[in-house]
Amino acid sequence: MQKGRLEAFSDGVLAIILTIMVLELKVPHGADFAALKPLLPVFLSYVLSFVYVGIYWNNHHHLLSSARQINGSVLWPNLHLLFWLSLVPVSTGWMGENHFASATLAVYGGILLASAVAYSILQNRLIALNGGPDSPLAHAVGRDWKGKLSPVLYLVGIVSSFGLPWLAGAVYVGVALMWLVPDRRIERTLQASSES
Amino acid sequence: MQKGRLEAFSDGVLAIILTIMVLELKVPHGADFAALKPLLPVFLSYVLSFVYVGIYWNNHHHLLSSARQINGSVLWPNLHLLFWLSLVPVSTGWMGENHFASATLAVYGGILLASAVAYSILQNRLIALNGGPDSPLAHAVGRDWKGKLSPVLYLVGIVSSFGLPWLAGAVYVGVALMWLVPDRRIERTLQASSES
Amino acid sequence: MQKGRLEAFSDGVLAIILTIMVLELKVPHGADFAALKPLLPVFLSYVLSFVYVGIYWNNHHHLLSSARQINGSVLWPNLHLLFWLSLVPVSTGWMGENHFASATLAVYGGILLASAVAYSILQNRLIALNGGPDSPLAHAVGRDWKGKLSPVLYLVGIVSSFGLPWLAGAVYVGVALMWLVPDRRIERTLQASSES
Amino acid sequence: MQKGRLEAFSDGVLAIILTIMVLELKVPHGADFAALKPLLPVFLSYVLSFVYVGIYWNNHHHLLSSARQINGSVLWPNLHLLFWLSLVPVSTGWMGENHFASATLAVYGGILLASAVAYSILQNRLIALNGGPDSPLAHAVGRDWKGKLSPVLYLVGIVSSFGLPWLAGAVYVGVALMWLVPDRRIERTLQASSES
Repeated sequence: MQKGRLEAFSDGVLAIILTIMVLELKVPHGADFAALKPLLPVFLSYVLSFVYVGIYWNNHHHLLSSARQINGSVLWPNLHLLFWLSLVPVSTGWMGENHFASATLAVYGGILLASAVAYSILQNRLIALNGGPDSPLAHAVGRDWKGKLSPVLYLVGIVSSFGLPWLAGAVYVGVALMWLVPDRRIERTLQASSES
Repeated sequence: MQKGRLEAFSDGVLAIILTIMVLELKVPHGADFAALKPLLPVFLSYVLSFVYVGIYWNNHHHLLSSARQINGSVLWPNLHLLFWLSLVPVSTGWMGENHFASATLAVYGGILLASAVAYSILQNRLIALNGGPDSPLAHAVGRDWKGKLSPVLYLVGIVSSFGLPWLAGAVYVGVALMWLVPDRRIERTLQASSES
Repeated sequence: MQKGRLEAFSDGVLAIILTIMVLELKVPHGADFAALKPLLPVFLSYVLSFVYVGIYWNNHHHLLSSARQINGSVLWPNLHLLFWLSLVPVSTGWMGENHFASATLAVYGGILLASAVAYSILQNRLIALNGGPDSPLAHAVGRDWKGKLSPVLYLVGIVSSFGLPWLAGAVYVGVALMWLVPDRRIERTLQASSES
Repeated sequence: MQKGRLEAFSDGVLAIILTIMVLELKVPHGADFAALKPLLPVFLSYVLSFVYVGIYWNNHHHLLSSARQINGSVLWPNLHLLFWLSLVPVSTGWMGENHFASATLAVYGGILLASAVAYSILQNRLIALNGGPDSPLAHAVGRDWKGKLSPVLYLVGIVSSFGLPWLAGAVYVGVALMWLVPDRRIERTLQASSES
């Protein structure tokens, strides 16, 4: 019951975050296709952030459906994650409107990094609540190489924003793809190499 | 459970899309009825898009309530559909504010087309998951002549936006009516003619 | 199940309508109390509309919890009601920003009238689905004198907007109070007078 | 069932309040870090209000999950609470944009005070419905020293807004921390001193 309401509230906030992002796509001035051109960077940053919020909803969904029990100590780690994700829309708009300028890329990466850290805290809290490192939840989460690699890559993105902005953008797109693409093979390879 | 949360999240996003569209109806300047006149095209485009989002909610509702099982592979096709539908409000506002100019009609049709394709992908994914072409879900979906005709009509609308904008508008209204009007008779006629 | 999702979607839309209305209360220019004064009419119209949307949520809640079964034929009457209610925020903002000018009062009353008609259509549809005039649902709805009186009063409000705007405002406030105040005594009196 | 829908609707409104607050964080003009500086007070007031809405969601969640039964008489006290909370975003924006000026701090405190009073009314209504002062719900609520102290502190904040604005700010932050920090020890101390 309590879990159901936590999920419902998180779904509500994530659904609103996903949807208010589109408000940054302002109705263009002018009635021809040329009027759409200035929207292109805002549109591209919208697509990227839509995918990121979708990934978080997806992971949050799997994490909570694997957790057997929750209690009050989960509420604030969950709100903490939602707080950072709530900053994604304004950061996305800032980045898009300024054509992926250095400072905007760094701040965007910083919010992705903070969200990733907040997600880890929530995940650790839930694992501790559900029986610790040998629990079914911990096994469902697994080695979580994506969750460990992402913050490192965000840091690479933040640093490369100054001087190599195209690399920062490529890193953010790459991390999103890493989460999107099914990863059986990569995971098996990594596991094999760690076992050898 | 997983299905419940997918529905709840989709409901949330669709409810927000439906409601933020009304934000394009800006509070009129002036306190008399004349001040409402410039709002008329925006209002008409709002009505049309409200009906379209309502149709998608309706169909999404029926599709998911017919599906017995879902899994993680449904999440992204579902988000993909929500992505295109999230572009309906800004596209509606652009069309309304520019009095149904050619480019705005073509883009509106393009977003309807993309949404229809995304819906088909989701539907096919769900049918594959639920037993394939002989499953109860496939029978519930049926011959889906509306789902197959709509993209063709959207294409007609997009092409006719240039030169025959009134036709494009008529096509978009017509497709909406096609989904709204109960269609027992049409369906029976089509079935009869295909059987003869 | 189907009923649950209809309620959830309606709750979502009503919650968003309730909340985006507050967006019409723009952050005041100026940092002293005097800066709040121009907000007063917008605030008053916000309170009135908040109460109206609350009444609709309340009645919608009772209506659906009394209905034992619903089907696809309820979806569009429900969306039709949500459509008119979705126009409450912009109409509220127009009325508040123009200090309850005649045209704005008439339009506000018109949207209240259309919402009341839409609610009746939904209620009749549900009664027909749940066993007709002798069903438990019909008995739960009862003589519905408030539901029958409200549209008449809205019409009085609309007509009196021109010439007697204060009366229109008083009527809209009065109808809201009529729904808010518990009405055992009034109902008993009316019943008694109709039986004598 | 009825309780489930009340929770769902409240969750929806609280999720939207939480999320539209971030709309006050406007996309900065300028593409460098200096462009973020004017956002700082708005950001700080956003963090504070996010925590407050989170606290209310948290408490509302515990209160309703402890209540065994609800009825129609709870709906308006609940909407009354949501009304005052719906004013938090605009008040937050006003305070942030005017760098915590006296009048804005007083109004912010006033809305916190009204929300606290509305919460008490809802809590008392639920306790009365669930068996009164000896019911399990009343025991779950306990001595509620935080709930009794908060309105007093908000009053201190409102009064000190004029002349000692920094104290008002400190009080609002302090009350939020008081609710955030786990309070076993404080509660035990208070209980001990009241028993001696």
